[in-house]
Formats: sequence, structure tokens, C-alpha cells
Amino acid sequence: MREQRRLLIDPVRLGSDPLHQPFALSQGESHYLGRVLRLAAGDSFLVTDGCGQLWQACLERSAMARLEALLAREPVPRPRITLLSGLVRKDQEQLLRLGTELGCDGFQPLICDHSRRDRGNSRLERRQLICCEAAEQCERLWLPRLWPPRPSRQALDTAPSPGLRRFLCVARQQRPGLAAQLAALDPPAVETLQLALGPEGGWSRAELAFAAAAGWQFASLGPHVLRAVTGGLTALALAQQWRGGLLLG
Amino acid sequence: MREQRRLLIDPVRLGSDPLHQPFALSQGESHYLGRVLRLAAGDSFLVTDGCGQLWQACLERSAMARLEALLAREPVPRPRITLLSGLVRKDQEQLLRLGTELGCDGFQPLICDHSRRDRGNSRLERRQLICCEAAEQCERLWLPRLWPPRPSRQALDTAPSPGLRRFLCVARQQRPGLAAQLAALDPPAVETLQLALGPEGGWSRAELAFAAAAGWQFASLGPHVLRAVTGGLTALALAQQWRGGLLLG
Repeated sequence: MREQRRLLIDPVRLGSDPLHQPFALSQGESHYLGRVLRLAAGDSFLVTDGCGQLWQACLERSAMARLEALLAREPVPRPRITLLSGLVRKDQEQLLRLGTELGCDGFQPLICDHSRRDRGNSRLERRQLICCEAAEQCERLWLPRLWPPRPSRQALDTAPSPGLRRFLCVARQQRPGLAAQLAALDPPAVETLQLALGPEGGWSRAELAFAAAAGWQFASLGPHVLRAVTGGLTALALAQQWRGGLLLG
Repeated sequence: MREQRRLLIDPVRLGSDPLHQPFALSQGESHYLGRVLRLAAGDSFLVTDGCGQLWQACLERSAMARLEALLAREPVPRPRITLLSGLVRKDQEQLLRLGTELGCDGFQPLICDHSRRDRGNSRLERRQLICCEAAEQCERLWLPRLWPPRPSRQALDTAPSPGLRRFLCVARQQRPGLAAQLAALDPPAVETLQLALGPEGGWSRAELAFAAAAGWQFASLGPHVLRAVTGGLTALALAQQWRGGLLLG
């Protein structure tokens, strides 16, 4: 069965009681619905607010649309899965796109000792757009958060809390696999799962020492040396399956 | 610790008793060692044959090198992990690169009912090169095999055998997760694990019926609709962790 195409629209634009209220489409959205999908006035499409709600919507004349029925409301995914990953030069957008598909709830890019320079904040808007597009495409109802890049030590120095579990993935070290360590967690006790991945050049020794002192558990992603993007996606795939298994179980 | 850079060289070129025997470098390899890595005569680098062996090698004058010592010999990874995946238009190379890092032992591209047209065989050489580069980079000693594209029904119609386990991944159907189904396998009984993923447009109904009749087990990769590449990488990441967990256990 082929799903209808969906638009992700900021809840602020939909208003506090959005059902049956017309709302304005942006030029890009109008173009997409009218020219790309060839919808006409009266045709229906799907809208999500990225905050767990999915509606049937109806295209109206002159760049307006209306929400007609609430189709689904999803609770916030638990545990939250957050990826802290060293900035990579070329593949940052790919990591966001695939990571959104894989259920990541938050992306924290890290400025690491071995990170390449990055224009960072100036690209934030474009990167948010990539997360939106990926969420629309993979039919997520919750949009992941994307934070601006932070220095690695600042971001790794989270205060331990009872519901927080933190795994830092490393290569070329004999560490237990991430999948096995996830399987050993007591699920109801986990509120947030943080996964940290280094940049292309790997973690520096100083960063590893800092993370160990800050209480991060070290984990392996397998026998090969994964590039930063492959490592991030592997960690997310394992975490999503672990969380999904909890939902099924 | 930073590893030395390694070259993957076809075992045919190294000869049957390669230790201490000089062998000729291709123009590309000479350029890479001399101009990119700036090695001089007498400098050492690593060589793997993609068949499980790793050597220390020494650069000689005039585009020749010599193997100096066998550093490692790895048995064939077991179980074998093979990915059968619907051809995708843009991301085929990315799937090969990341899939090689994730330990895939064989790639069988499928010409599916919903596949886009593909120049297929004409690109085989370029795609083999991508697998080689990825194997060098991620420090694999076994090169994955890459078969030319085949029609999906031909490729899915493998004869059942005692050591063969086959999972066909599907979206939008209530099926048990792949991770859970892998965890339930009896490891010593598995010789080959085949994972099948559809193309961007998904499997056709006829393909799903064909696969079910041919004995494939259906598996889910999670709640979201993954693009073909994300799905392939997720399946491989789970399979590699499952196999790695076996090795550790």
C-alpha cells in the first residue's frame, strides 16, 4: 500500500486548536503540492507537526490548506536516543538524513580535537531542513532536535542522572560490543540513551581520558574501522532495534 | 595508535609463494605510495590480498615492492553474510562502501519489479574498486564478492540448505524485528545468512508472494520507512553485531 505524501509543518503555524482551521502554505509547500504532486483544490494530503500528531489535510485555493481529521497521536519515543558525533567534513548531511530514518531523537555535533573546521552554525538551517525532509519521508511523527556544534568536552560533561546511559564508541580497542551492552540494560530504568562517536580522525587520547573520568562506558561497534558516518549509523541502528524490541516485547 | 596505510593487491599478482618475492606496482599504486603518502625506497607499508592475509611490505625502486613478513592470517568470516538488495539509482556506491565497512561478505544487486533502470554490468568494475577502497580503509582482510545484477526472482530462488538462513526485510507490515530473529538463531548451525532488501519503490506484491513461497522469513527493521540504502545498512549492522557477539561469546 502506498502512503499519501506528507508535509511536516511547524506546530506554531498550525495554531493551538488546529482542526478545521485554515493555515497558509509557504511558497515551497504550495509548489510541492500543486506542481510536483499535482494536487488540485479539494485534494487531500497528510500533515504532521513533528510533535507526534498526524492529520488528514485538504488543499484549498490560493496557497491555503485545512486540517480535516486527526489520524494519529504518538507519545514521545522512550527512551530518548541522542547521538553526539564528531563533525565530519563531507558526510554530515548524510548522517542527519539516515540518522533521522533510524529514529535518532537528537543530534549534537561535536567539535573534537581531531575535527575538521566547519562553518557550523551557518549551516544549521540547511541541516534542520534535511531532518524535516527525512522525517517526512520515513513517516516519523517526532522531529529530531538538532543542536549547534559544541566543543567535545562541554558536550561529554553531562551530569550523571539515574535515567541516563552513555556509551562512547571506540575502534581498535578490546571493548564489549554495543549491542551486548544495550541488551544488558534494564529498559524501564533508561530515560535517555546517549551515544558518542568520534570524528574521522578518531577521539584524541585526552578526549578518551576525559570521557572515562566523566563516566562514559566504552563500546565497540565491531572488528572493522568504521568511518564516522558508518559508526554513527551502526550505533543508531542498534539502539533503535533495542528500543523497538522493547516496544514489541 | 594510527595504523600504516594498506594496499589491497590481487593474490594472483603476488604469486603462490609471495614472501620476499618482488612484485610490480600499478601506476596508480606507485603514485599513491610515492606521491600521496610520500614513501621513498626502503619505506614500509601494509599489503593485504583480500583473502585473509596481511603483510608488511617494502617499497623498492622503479615501481616494485617486496613482501617482508606475514603479519596476520584470518580465517574466512563465518557465518557468511550476503546482502541481496534492489538496485537504487543514486546510492548504490554508498551502499557498497558502507556495507563493506559493516562486514558484508557478498553483494547481489537485484533487478526488482520496482527497480530503476541501471547500466549494471558496465559499472561492475567501478563498483569493485569501491569495495577494494573500503576494505583497505576499514582494515578488512577479506574482500567482499560483488556479483552482477540479477532479476529478483532468480536470485531469491536459492535452494534451501541446512546451513542457509534467509531474511527478507519489509516495511509497513507487522513482522518480528530482524535483531530478535537473529538472536533466536542457533549460531553453529548457520553457514550463510542472506539478507534481502527491496529497491526504493519497495517489493512488489508478486515478489513478496514469490519470496514467501521460496521459504524466506520476513523481518522488520523498525517503525520507520527506511530508504533502500538505510535499510541495507541497518540489516548489515545488526548481522555484523550478531556475528561479532558470537565471536566474543
